[in-house]
Amino acid sequence: MVFDLSPLHSAKTPLEFVRTAKAVVDIELAALIGTIPVWDAARQITSIASYATFAGGGGKRIRPALALLIARCCGVNLTEVIIPAAAIELIHTYTLIIDDIQDGDQIRRGEPAAHVKFGMNLSLLSASALLIEGTSLLQENSSIPPVVLREILQKLHAGQEADLESTFWLESNRDRASMEFIFAGKTGALFELSCLAGLGPQSSDTAFISKIANIGSAMGILFQAVDDFLEVTGNENQTGKPIGKNRGDKLTFMSLFSDQEQARQAIEARREQLIDSIQDLLFGDGRAFLQSFVNALVDRTG
Amino acid sequence: MVFDLSPLHSAKTPLEFVRTAKAVVDIELAALIGTIPVWDAARQITSIASYATFAGGGGKRIRPALALLIARCCGVNLTEVIIPAAAIELIHTYTLIIDDIQDGDQIRRGEPAAHVKFGMNLSLLSASALLIEGTSLLQENSSIPPVVLREILQKLHAGQEADLESTFWLESNRDRASMEFIFAGKTGALFELSCLAGLGPQSSDTAFISKIANIGSAMGILFQAVDDFLEVTGNENQTGKPIGKNRGDKLTFMSLFSDQEQARQAIEARREQLIDSIQDLLFGDGRAFLQSFVNALVDRTG
Repeated sequence: MVFDLSPLHSAKTPLEFVRTAKAVVDIELAALIGTIPVWDAARQITSIASYATFAGGGGKRIRPALALLIARCCGVNLTEVIIPAAAIELIHTYTLIIDDIQDGDQIRRGEPAAHVKFGMNLSLLSASALLIEGTSLLQENSSIPPVVLREILQKLHAGQEADLESTFWLESNRDRASMEFIFAGKTGALFELSCLAGLGPQSSDTAFISKIANIGSAMGILFQAVDDFLEVTGNENQTGKPIGKNRGDKLTFMSLFSDQEQARQAIEARREQLIDSIQDLLFGDGRAFLQSFVNALVDRTG
Repeated sequence: MVFDLSPLHSAKTPLEFVRTAKAVVDIELAALIGTIPVWDAARQITSIASYATFAGGGGKRIRPALALLIARCCGVNLTEVIIPAAAIELIHTYTLIIDDIQDGDQIRRGEPAAHVKFGMNLSLLSASALLIEGTSLLQENSSIPPVVLREILQKLHAGQEADLESTFWLESNRDRASMEFIFAGKTGALFELSCLAGLGPQSSDTAFISKIANIGSAMGILFQAVDDFLEVTGNENQTGKPIGKNRGDKLTFMSLFSDQEQARQAIEARREQLIDSIQDLLFGDGRAFLQSFVNALVDRTG
């Protein structure tokens, strides 16, 4: 696809950037799902992939937006980052389908979850197809080494395992380190991947890559912490999830604190640390823009 | 791992080759599963991967054996094919875990299926981890282009979809072409991949690669047809599956024929065709050995 990317270059605020990125990414996503081979005798895999990606408006596409934002902040050609950015959203959609099956969630983005609408068996196949399509497109269109991609995706699965099992953990395991591990996996992994994809198909120096990856991971953890915070304090319209939805006995960010004020302070400490890391790594307009993106993530209300 | 591969070179019969290959592949499989990152808070993914790979003796490893056999028949260095061969078995194990969940099967290779022993949620994560590990290792250690790998894996999923949906098909859809599509996906795809992996990390000419891929696909279809045949005529010990296991109303090879003799003749016709394709493509000892491998696949009793 050929896009006019000047609105992404000229967006003045992170929110404007994310909105603009979504328009571009949604078109690319439809195109990529359209390239999953379709056979007469097997059309549901693609239909479900498309449904899971676009139902309920399809979410904010925060991960692809982050990839494009990193590209803008680091002076990488945005055109070369669109496909890998969208590929990460395909992988994210795979995780949503599986999450909803595992948690028995019926609603996703205000619409019936894929497994509710199409049944579990076909949804599982569609999830796998999205995983394959996403990882493969990412491999073909970025400089992320296969070994790194593999490690990040396995961390994603590990975080998901710990999240599921946290229900059975003793009180002694329900600590900050465990929460950190879960969030670094289930949310940090794809944020990390987004930052790496944002560096484009020409690789930069290893030390820089590893610092960008750390920033992505920290951003994912912070994003998830704010998510948990909003789930307790926000309202249903803002997060798209039923309030007080039974999260079983899973370890959440909020369960680590005795009151909301403590949790808010912990979020602030993480925000500061992240702003400082960006201060040390980038410079000029790019630095300021990525920092204001972090602030927008934390200050969002939904 | 470093292996003494002389037994693979000197094996006189396909059965001896498959047995010898299994010994090597099983060691490599354990090593590869051992490289899936393990975290304290998430140990089950690897345990389940190991269980699903080795429970009940782990099967004949026919796909890795085929990769190694193609390597021997085409004069490729066997050492370079061991990792990709084992990687395909990891992908195969992913399909077994998902199959058993989808079909509600309780027993696999005479032992409880992974989802029965470890629950569905963790088994799904382990299946995904195996898929990621397998495709990634295959990518890193073979000359199969990412695009080709992606297409073959999507064909695998499509065949699986058609297989699941065949329960609801009208009589008019239950024909040879549909069976061919299902088998080419659910079994042919990984046989095709095995043959491609057998060509090693240095690629050969495109026409040859495509012919080898076709032979792999045809071999997979034939293997599945014989499987269906044995399920009806064989006994429980030989196939490892309960006889007369309710396959629902799925389209099977046997359901296309009015009696066993007709089915047997159709298998013979496919065998002949495959033997001829090999006759046209290879020469010398390699040709004869691959042909006798096909004969062993067809003449097996379990």
